[in-house]
Amino acid sequence: MKVSIVGASGYTGVELIRYLSFHKDVEIAQIVSRQFSGKKLSSVFPHFSKTPYEDLIFEEDVDKESFDIYFLCLPHEPSVELVKELTDKGKKVIDLSAAYRIKDIHKYPEYYGFEHRFGELLDRAVYGLPEIFRKDIEKANLVANPGCYPTATLLALYPGIKEEVVVGDTVVVNALSGISGAGRSVKQHFHYPEAYGNAYAYNPTKHRHTPEMEDVIKRVTGKEIKVRFTPHIIPVSRGMISTVVFNTNLRKEQLVELYRLEYRYEPFVRIVPQPPQIKNVVGSNFCDLYVDLDERTGQAVIISAIDNLGKGASSQAVQNMNIMTGLPEDKYLKTLSEISILFP
Amino acid sequence: MKVSIVGASGYTGVELIRYLSFHKDVEIAQIVSRQFSGKKLSSVFPHFSKTPYEDLIFEEDVDKESFDIYFLCLPHEPSVELVKELTDKGKKVIDLSAAYRIKDIHKYPEYYGFEHRFGELLDRAVYGLPEIFRKDIEKANLVANPGCYPTATLLALYPGIKEEVVVGDTVVVNALSGISGAGRSVKQHFHYPEAYGNAYAYNPTKHRHTPEMEDVIKRVTGKEIKVRFTPHIIPVSRGMISTVVFNTNLRKEQLVELYRLEYRYEPFVRIVPQPPQIKNVVGSNFCDLYVDLDERTGQAVIISAIDNLGKGASSQAVQNMNIMTGLPEDKYLKTLSEISILFP
Amino acid sequence: MKVSIVGASGYTGVELIRYLSFHKDVEIAQIVSRQFSGKKLSSVFPHFSKTPYEDLIFEEDVDKESFDIYFLCLPHEPSVELVKELTDKGKKVIDLSAAYRIKDIHKYPEYYGFEHRFGELLDRAVYGLPEIFRKDIEKANLVANPGCYPTATLLALYPGIKEEVVVGDTVVVNALSGISGAGRSVKQHFHYPEAYGNAYAYNPTKHRHTPEMEDVIKRVTGKEIKVRFTPHIIPVSRGMISTVVFNTNLRKEQLVELYRLEYRYEPFVRIVPQPPQIKNVVGSNFCDLYVDLDERTGQAVIISAIDNLGKGASSQAVQNMNIMTGLPEDKYLKTLSEISILFP
Amino acid sequence: MKVSIVGASGYTGVELIRYLSFHKDVEIAQIVSRQFSGKKLSSVFPHFSKTPYEDLIFEEDVDKESFDIYFLCLPHEPSVELVKELTDKGKKVIDLSAAYRIKDIHKYPEYYGFEHRFGELLDRAVYGLPEIFRKDIEKANLVANPGCYPTATLLALYPGIKEEVVVGDTVVVNALSGISGAGRSVKQHFHYPEAYGNAYAYNPTKHRHTPEMEDVIKRVTGKEIKVRFTPHIIPVSRGMISTVVFNTNLRKEQLVELYRLEYRYEPFVRIVPQPPQIKNVVGSNFCDLYVDLDERTGQAVIISAIDNLGKGASSQAVQNMNIMTGLPEDKYLKTLSEISILFP
Repeated sequence: MKVSIVGASGYTGVELIRYLSFHKDVEIAQIVSRQFSGKKLSSVFPHFSKTPYEDLIFEEDVDKESFDIYFLCLPHEPSVELVKELTDKGKKVIDLSAAYRIKDIHKYPEYYGFEHRFGELLDRAVYGLPEIFRKDIEKANLVANPGCYPTATLLALYPGIKEEVVVGDTVVVNALSGISGAGRSVKQHFHYPEAYGNAYAYNPTKHRHTPEMEDVIKRVTGKEIKVRFTPHIIPVSRGMISTVVFNTNLRKEQLVELYRLEYRYEPFVRIVPQPPQIKNVVGSNFCDLYVDLDERTGQAVIISAIDNLGKGASSQAVQNMNIMTGLPEDKYLKTLSEISILFP
Repeated sequence: MKVSIVGASGYTGVELIRYLSFHKDVEIAQIVSRQFSGKKLSSVFPHFSKTPYEDLIFEEDVDKESFDIYFLCLPHEPSVELVKELTDKGKKVIDLSAAYRIKDIHKYPEYYGFEHRFGELLDRAVYGLPEIFRKDIEKANLVANPGCYPTATLLALYPGIKEEVVVGDTVVVNALSGISGAGRSVKQHFHYPEAYGNAYAYNPTKHRHTPEMEDVIKRVTGKEIKVRFTPHIIPVSRGMISTVVFNTNLRKEQLVELYRLEYRYEPFVRIVPQPPQIKNVVGSNFCDLYVDLDERTGQAVIISAIDNLGKGASSQAVQNMNIMTGLPEDKYLKTLSEISILFP
Repeated sequence: MKVSIVGASGYTGVELIRYLSFHKDVEIAQIVSRQFSGKKLSSVFPHFSKTPYEDLIFEEDVDKESFDIYFLCLPHEPSVELVKELTDKGKKVIDLSAAYRIKDIHKYPEYYGFEHRFGELLDRAVYGLPEIFRKDIEKANLVANPGCYPTATLLALYPGIKEEVVVGDTVVVNALSGISGAGRSVKQHFHYPEAYGNAYAYNPTKHRHTPEMEDVIKRVTGKEIKVRFTPHIIPVSRGMISTVVFNTNLRKEQLVELYRLEYRYEPFVRIVPQPPQIKNVVGSNFCDLYVDLDERTGQAVIISAIDNLGKGASSQAVQNMNIMTGLPEDKYLKTLSEISILFP
Repeated sequence: MKVSIVGASGYTGVELIRYLSFHKDVEIAQIVSRQFSGKKLSSVFPHFSKTPYEDLIFEEDVDKESFDIYFLCLPHEPSVELVKELTDKGKKVIDLSAAYRIKDIHKYPEYYGFEHRFGELLDRAVYGLPEIFRKDIEKANLVANPGCYPTATLLALYPGIKEEVVVGDTVVVNALSGISGAGRSVKQHFHYPEAYGNAYAYNPTKHRHTPEMEDVIKRVTGKEIKVRFTPHIIPVSRGMISTVVFNTNLRKEQLVELYRLEYRYEPFVRIVPQPPQIKNVVGSNFCDLYVDLDERTGQAVIISAIDNLGKGASSQAVQNMNIMTGLPEDKYLKTLSEISILFP
């Protein structure tokens, strides 16, 4: 299979190259980057020196005809159009932007600042969280790869909402994210001396990932459950924690068993006996999940950890590709995940 | 005034030396540390070289007679007895441990693993959060200096609980702490290579600071409001964020105004227009506070930032000392706070 | 004394505000920043909220008439002209750029990329390293405040070159710098995720600070001693280490005694018994200095640590101001240094 | 091939498990750790959950009979005896300690504090730096795996000393190391809050790796060239820079060409056009090398970067194993290196 990575010089693009260069069923046939067009991969990113794709050249334009699968790592708005063009040509597309994640087309102006013109395609797009939508992904031509916060949060919520053990209409989610989640564009507040030793909440009452999460919850439960979501920046490059609290009537053993059963055959979800640590998942496609009950308040406390650039973006995109193309879901992805977590 | 710092070689002890060395009404007359007894301050902590107390010698034993004020920076259990002895001698004591923080004596075995024998003194101890208990502190001989999480959280809750605008019987609190909050004793998981690049929740359903917070809430409101509390470790040395969520019927403007009014004369609480950053408070006695309402869910979102070793421990102890001794509350403390926040 | 800080929104400008706001003989009368003109200090830098200068407004233009002392924190080239104007008006100027640091006017095109037009003023400018040029600074109207690397390195070299114990014509200097030394302008390689966990040498054979160091060495010794200089970036915000190696015929005790004697009355140089740690000087005007001899190779190994924004820039500028204006050299500067070093 | 890892719970042991679990010609048959004997690998190190060796049990005692190859990750002194026993039984041993690195047996008391009793075995031990001693490693039963500083430094020096272009009898080496190089045992100065934001030189005139470096130089050149070596700690977990300066009569092009030629067929040495960054090698067996000449001083400036736990320890041990057992030197090692470097 020949793949094209569009927006290949951002963090998710480079991470895709890492995962796909290990995938023997795949040839990275094109990498597209306006900023670096004409340059060799290893001249822009020296850590690719003496690796198989070191001499690959960044191209200016997307060749929309020649390849089998397109990974789009573009800003949200430009992705809308390009996805349309590629799917019209019958290509398989995995879009890492938010352009096709939310079913309600009216949310785009409010949360992303642009009008979305392709409602029909939006309907057909499959939300690429395999642990929930695996069957749909198998048949999809267009997968909207989930955001990092929704991935971490929905994996923590899914068994609870699926089995309808969430009491009430609100769940409270607090999350921590490494700074790579904000992308590669330089910003004053991510200038090293200013981000160093700093941590803070941001967008505490209106974050773009909220409708994405609520949309999936509604599709799973048929109910309007609100997500009270506070994301926080912490001074690491990679890693994400989502701490999810909801009211429930279950006892602790029931809750733990519910999660254990739901995820027992999942290759990339690990139920862990202590609250998960980002260090144990960074570099991998794993999601570590801790399940507990606060008996004093009758609230479930579910805590997940992922690599925001891995299961929260690029390795999940590869997982989706495997599913879409009929390969074993964990092919090359499991081994890569096993061997690239560093300790310490 | 002559003061003694007992347990002076831990992080809160050293931070007290920093604050008190700038306080011209105070002489640091004794520093006690079993581990370093006989050694000069500057030989153990070289950053004190060429500073006024560089030649002060750590002593093995507490001189319980000679000084006016005792700051105790000891583990919880040994503090119980020493506080008793010193207050029996009529000394003013500021105890930075949890030994006298919780009014319900029965919580000590459950949360701290020891029986507390001095119930009467526990009743008399004043909880040293000046923004709530200033009047009591003025008359106190024994101040139980609050924990870092309770300080950050209670300052975020106080106007809400005082004015009874919290709806329901649970508040959800998520907090982030720098690692200095765990003290100076070495531990495997705080060994630099392992803590580096890591973050995680801990004690997610039973943290020692929970009863301390609920105890104060009950004293303020007369009601049993539960705190659903998840603390997280983040890889910085200092700094703490507490993100507090509670149901309310207030509108956003009312909520903001409530907090603005409550704290308008507080020298160390700053209402800030964006979620607070730990970098803006580290090194100081400030608490930065952000107030918002999630109109979708009807929940207040209050976020506070403090220095866990400052307002969360040692500089708050100095604030308490000023109040107990009739000095202006911000004396030497405000200036020191103003000038020791580093940017970047 | 009324002072103006020009370029007040960069790191050295903000650090000057911190130091000068504690200096009771000084009023910060003007802060100039094109980027933030019209904005309040505390709205741009929230950590100044509830501090004395919180309401000071950044101005667009320099008032060249009204103030006594001007601190210039500008890029090198614009500083050349402004310094000329201000000194022509009889103002005292402390220039934190390199515009007047190097005596040889021909070095400017080579190392800084512009022609310097004011050779006569260059001759009159005094290099603001008080431990070497104190007497000249007392009489100066224009002080060229040294670079951070030259400060750390020259303090490590000075006793050795002054007493002519350096054998040979080359010294080898390796230095480590926190990233704040590169200024506040955002850059891709200082974007947090990329600088995180990274370290590297840069400009290993042609760094701008080399001629500045060699120039001072020549003025002290009358000889051409070359500096083989390799600077390295390390992933902290502040702090600098300079490790200086030179051949010598001294014995270890002689070498240590030489340094001890030279610096014994210096308020800000501390001879330390172990290699200095940046953590012990960050936030202060101190330079910690370690002196050793490698008996196997006959080489002196002198290691210094400073805060690149402190003794390497802004607090040294205040030290120069004190000297230029006849104040005690350490006035307000020593106390501030003592109390703003954080441990941990 | 069945391998045993002795001392498997330290950083180099865990890193060996990572590399060897990807090596299909190898079965990790035994992991030995006194501290964790009886525990499952994944219970001690949760990041191994859902990986092939997750259920492997740490054993208390070394089975000295059953396996083909032994990797020893022990302290120096205990390693001396165990290496002797294993080699007497005809086992292949790769020793990651310093127990058999230095040919001169008299250096052990001075640098390591113990008498070495096995001079004959010391003579037979092969120093496991493949780029220099590949031919000897092929025939070796005992490989003394190099220290991290010597690996980085000798790779930077080797072409220069081999071709005798070093002028004079001293080279000056400054190195930076991440803290994992100091091992997994907790220490006060590596407690996170104290190591955070800190950097410093240590053992500036007597570091244990100095004789190891000088010993190899002497074997290559036949001459006594001294290494003036200053190591520095920087606050990262992994990564090492060595900056090597020596006098030479070569022109820059000659120098660059010399290095290019020497290493042109090396799979793990990459000559890079800019000073190397640790981020580009962490997780891998690569050594990135930059070659420059300071024409002003006539000194070569060679800068290398490695992962101290990779090429500086465990992956180099695997490289040695491949060579000793007749496998392609880069087997499984190259691919793993290519895919586990994270950006950012």
